Amino acid sequence: MKIQDSFWNRYIQLVRKVIIPYQWEILNDRVEEAEPSHCIKNFKIAAGIMQGEFQGAVFQDTDVAKWLEAVAYTLSAHPDNELEALADQVIALIGKAQGEDGYLNTYFTIKEPTLRWTNLKEGHELYTAGHMIEAAVAYYQATKKREFLDIVRRFADLICEVFGDGEQQCQGYSGHQEIELALVKLYQVTNEKKYLETAKFFIDKRGVGENYFLQEAKDSRYKAIFPEFAGYDTKYSQSHLPVREQVTAEGHAVRAVYMYCAMADLADYYQDEKLWEACETLWNNMVNRRMYITGSIGSSGLLERFTVDYDLPNDCNYSETCASIGLALFGKRMALISKDAKYMDIVERALYNTVLAGIALDGKSFFYVNPLEVWPSNCMERTSKEHVKAVRQKWFGVACCPPNVARTLASLGEYIYFADDKRAYINLYISNQAEIDVGDKHIEIDMQSDLLNTGNISCNIGEIERGTEIEVALRIPEYAKDFVVKIQGSIVSYQVEKGYAIVKGISANTQIEIECVAPPIFVRANPQVREDIGKVALVKGPLVYCLEEIDNGENLAAVFVDTSQDIHFQYQPDLLGGIGTLLLKGQRLDKTWKQDGLYQETKMAKAMFEQVELKAVPYSSWGNRESGEMQVWLKELFAKPNNI
Amino acid sequence: MKIQDSFWNRYIQLVRKVIIPYQWEILNDRVEEAEPSHCIKNFKIAAGIMQGEFQGAVFQDTDVAKWLEAVAYTLSAHPDNELEALADQVIALIGKAQGEDGYLNTYFTIKEPTLRWTNLKEGHELYTAGHMIEAAVAYYQATKKREFLDIVRRFADLICEVFGDGEQQCQGYSGHQEIELALVKLYQVTNEKKYLETAKFFIDKRGVGENYFLQEAKDSRYKAIFPEFAGYDTKYSQSHLPVREQVTAEGHAVRAVYMYCAMADLADYYQDEKLWEACETLWNNMVNRRMYITGSIGSSGLLERFTVDYDLPNDCNYSETCASIGLALFGKRMALISKDAKYMDIVERALYNTVLAGIALDGKSFFYVNPLEVWPSNCMERTSKEHVKAVRQKWFGVACCPPNVARTLASLGEYIYFADDKRAYINLYISNQAEIDVGDKHIEIDMQSDLLNTGNISCNIGEIERGTEIEVALRIPEYAKDFVVKIQGSIVSYQVEKGYAIVKGISANTQIEIECVAPPIFVRANPQVREDIGKVALVKGPLVYCLEEIDNGENLAAVFVDTSQDIHFQYQPDLLGGIGTLLLKGQRLDKTWKQDGLYQETKMAKAMFEQVELKAVPYSSWGNRESGEMQVWLKELFAKPNNI
Repeated sequence: MKIQDSFWNRYIQLVRKVIIPYQWEILNDRVEEAEPSHCIKNFKIAAGIMQGEFQGAVFQDTDVAKWLEAVAYTLSAHPDNELEALADQVIALIGKAQGEDGYLNTYFTIKEPTLRWTNLKEGHELYTAGHMIEAAVAYYQATKKREFLDIVRRFADLICEVFGDGEQQCQGYSGHQEIELALVKLYQVTNEKKYLETAKFFIDKRGVGENYFLQEAKDSRYKAIFPEFAGYDTKYSQSHLPVREQVTAEGHAVRAVYMYCAMADLADYYQDEKLWEACETLWNNMVNRRMYITGSIGSSGLLERFTVDYDLPNDCNYSETCASIGLALFGKRMALISKDAKYMDIVERALYNTVLAGIALDGKSFFYVNPLEVWPSNCMERTSKEHVKAVRQKWFGVACCPPNVARTLASLGEYIYFADDKRAYINLYISNQAEIDVGDKHIEIDMQSDLLNTGNISCNIGEIERGTEIEVALRIPEYAKDFVVKIQGSIVSYQVEKGYAIVKGISANTQIEIECVAPPIFVRANPQVREDIGKVALVKGPLVYCLEEIDNGENLAAVFVDTSQDIHFQYQPDLLGGIGTLLLKGQRLDKTWKQDGLYQETKMAKAMFEQVELKAVPYSSWGNRESGEMQVWLKELFAKPNNI
Repeated sequence: MKIQDSFWNRYIQLVRKVIIPYQWEILNDRVEEAEPSHCIKNFKIAAGIMQGEFQGAVFQDTDVAKWLEAVAYTLSAHPDNELEALADQVIALIGKAQGEDGYLNTYFTIKEPTLRWTNLKEGHELYTAGHMIEAAVAYYQATKKREFLDIVRRFADLICEVFGDGEQQCQGYSGHQEIELALVKLYQVTNEKKYLETAKFFIDKRGVGENYFLQEAKDSRYKAIFPEFAGYDTKYSQSHLPVREQVTAEGHAVRAVYMYCAMADLADYYQDEKLWEACETLWNNMVNRRMYITGSIGSSGLLERFTVDYDLPNDCNYSETCASIGLALFGKRMALISKDAKYMDIVERALYNTVLAGIALDGKSFFYVNPLEVWPSNCMERTSKEHVKAVRQKWFGVACCPPNVARTLASLGEYIYFADDKRAYINLYISNQAEIDVGDKHIEIDMQSDLLNTGNISCNIGEIERGTEIEVALRIPEYAKDFVVKIQGSIVSYQVEKGYAIVKGISANTQIEIECVAPPIFVRANPQVREDIGKVALVKGPLVYCLEEIDNGENLAAVFVDTSQDIHFQYQPDLLGGIGTLLLKGQRLDKTWKQDGLYQETKMAKAMFEQVELKAVPYSSWGNRESGEMQVWLKELFAKPNNI
């Protein structure tokens, strides 16, 4: 799979050219302006080839894992001997840091060797193990080299021994979910059933009976790690109820969606209807009640968590980049299992908006927090908005988002296609060349997509055996006003199955053309979302747009728009790496207030509108010029209803 | 002074009948549902008449001080031998807890006897001393008994010895201002100049040179008290700059306004122009850029602090009740010194809205935090809105607000009148009978005010010596559309001086009548206040109004109002102890959305308004029925401007 997309390539190439090399420097503490990561040193110390103390967070090892995972995906598309050799060295180091019994975690190995598995709530051992496993699986798939896979298998074997329903086994589960989906992946490449079963054990056990984390905290060996975890709320880690009984998305958003991924996988493998229903229920709650239009989740800055239905504040939300990545991972699984395109609508929304907003166009700075409205002046340290940043940050103490964005971009191909025995599913319209297996048939696809501009897409299907045919399922995006399919230049009718246009009888060397009509539109939020009542967002296709101060002046809150107007789309090749902008008229309400004071009778301070020209840019591109205000939801100017 | 006001009496009588007795039970740990205060026990332990450990916050003693202060003001208006005897017992106990050298603070005496004055940043010793002094001064004024005053004088003498510019003296100042204004009060009743000078020392020293708090933290005797103070921001305690150079209201709001009070006092006593200018500058910054329409301050929930100009979020602000009390105290001083009525406009706003909102109509529960918009569902523990409460709380761990409200209500008379040699200033129109001295003339005033309803006020002036005359200065409130003055039944013209209507030649037995015309109005905020753009508030006279869910249904954010309509005022004797309500028409935008999802194109989800009848109640009365939504700022429904 090679992605050759004018929109995506600017980001994807950053992974290879900027992020992976930069992150390697970070891992080795060679970036002066960044906080020292100490990651590689921790492994050297654990391996006994360097003296020193552990430094960093308990989950510091995951930065190395995520780097290796991004490297793996990159190597799949762009073989690079030098990079592969470097990765091999790191893998060898990881091997040396592994214990005789397979245990692998530099924090506990160096700092708390006697406290293994005594603080599952905060220790992140199983979380860290999960990221190692994911990286090893990806590296094995990319290079066919087994060393890293063997390392994590030894660790996974230990985990399967330590955890389980047996009398001598620990009945606990991870304080931060991740191991569950990782063990499923490990099963997928090794076919070793016990990995799947242990994943199922973790999911089945969670939230059942007396809460494990509250129990373990009473043990004499328990040693607290994070002071802010005192007075623990079990919802935080989705351990408040058995997973099959959970009906609302609760707690820390990243933990939640990582768990839902494994639930979906296991529901499929075990044909567990109750688990599948829980996945659907949680999905629906999340996307219909608790998700921003940008595909982000987690309304509370404090604890990065879900709050309640329809509580979606725009200027103080957390909306972590990693949570949107997790949402995309969950949606991808739901789509793959159900073959329902509605899931990919959300995946696309998350990827095109929040995930991309997480990274600067130069690949060197990152957002953790993704507000939909920013006024830089009030994003102050030591206030309620201290988590909101008006400019992307170089790197973070807890560096989860940058490498997570990197591995997501590097693995984007996985979202574009699925296949079953007879059908190729095309989910995302991103230009690429790929080879996929549809049952026993091998096909090549060459997709050219102009989705974001004209909406014209072509897919050339090649290399099916002579005389055989396949079906192609083309996702009809929710935003498509029309979705015309042509085969070999002629418009064809098609059946729609769960949001996919099904074209049958596709043989080799067929050209499929699509016209996906998606003009810019105004979008309203459900009026239960109190923050957005009387407001509209600008959307074109998968992209949510925003106003920035640099284009529209300060005080964006004073801008109103009349939604009966047409929005003009204009591609600007020189702006922000080449983007489509939206041009429209607005009315400003802030130009007639004369005095310095704060409050005045309406009769004294009449509301006078001034017409202005507005330019909106994709939300994913915001914050790449000078620091300034940004706003997604714009006030709507209504006509007074007739009855008053 | 006896207040006999149909609006205020419901609150004032609570102090005597409910709060003082209830708080006494609290101080003695006899209220089951409240956290134990341990206050009286701490004094007994410090006095050596009980065994045990100190319990509570470092400033726990101030609860006793504020209780005594409220008792003192209450005794002035309502002599009560039993209550006075109880207070005398407490004072005797305080005396026993005092050290030989005058030191008085149960935390340090019991728990950290060797660490006196080593942590001014967090220790609250001078803050606690200040509250003791304020209480003693009030008790002396109410009862003429000297015992308590003598106790605090001994402590004040020690403070004057310990702190100062001398080589052997400590050059520090309090981490929480309060001692400064208290020492001024002590000077006022004792005429002992050193108290004034030490107050001046504290004000002059603050923020000069290397920050004292950062210095003291390097001392080997320094012992941290509050973990959240790590990484201290000197703005938090207004010690970032010398006070005369401060031009914006910064940091913890209560600390700020308590300091400004002393600055105003000292500017007056020392005729310090620079200090006076600083007071004016800070006042203007605060009331013109950083104050809510309800007279509250402190936009950030975290650290209860000011943020930046025009940052006034309505649903996550702190707006502490105590900060509005401090604002009123500061404004009262500014008004008294400058004889400018504009200060009293703000004082009145704070008292009638935020201070009263702080207390339930039954006197048994209290708000610390005073949002202007509440949606109870999202005021969740362990989220960014955890400080916002939809219902008043029984009592608090840090119990500053309830006793502070009590002493404010009990001392309300101090706000109503000022006098100088020839003039009586009438600031607030609250029905009362009072005796005041205007120069050497003793007068009686009997005021009957219907300010909140008809706006009709009468003042009968009595008891001036035959043949002599005084001037009366009647504050013309900023909201008065007309302000008609009648003397003995005939309309008179008057000069206006700094917002006061001056009526001259008033002799004994004169009836002054006022028609203060203040119909209900819509008020707009300065459009720099991003949160309030396109919104209006309902105001009548000094009262800001709000909508409550119980009267107007849920989802108040969906309500729009056309400001060209008339607002109908209706007094409802049976509602909330008797209040004026405002009735108007609204348009709801939330009745036509059909589906469960979150986002839809405007063309598919048309905005349909439904006309509704709205009823607004005074903000001060909100939250006294069932828990529900509340909102001050309502969306305005504009006519589309002609140019589109």
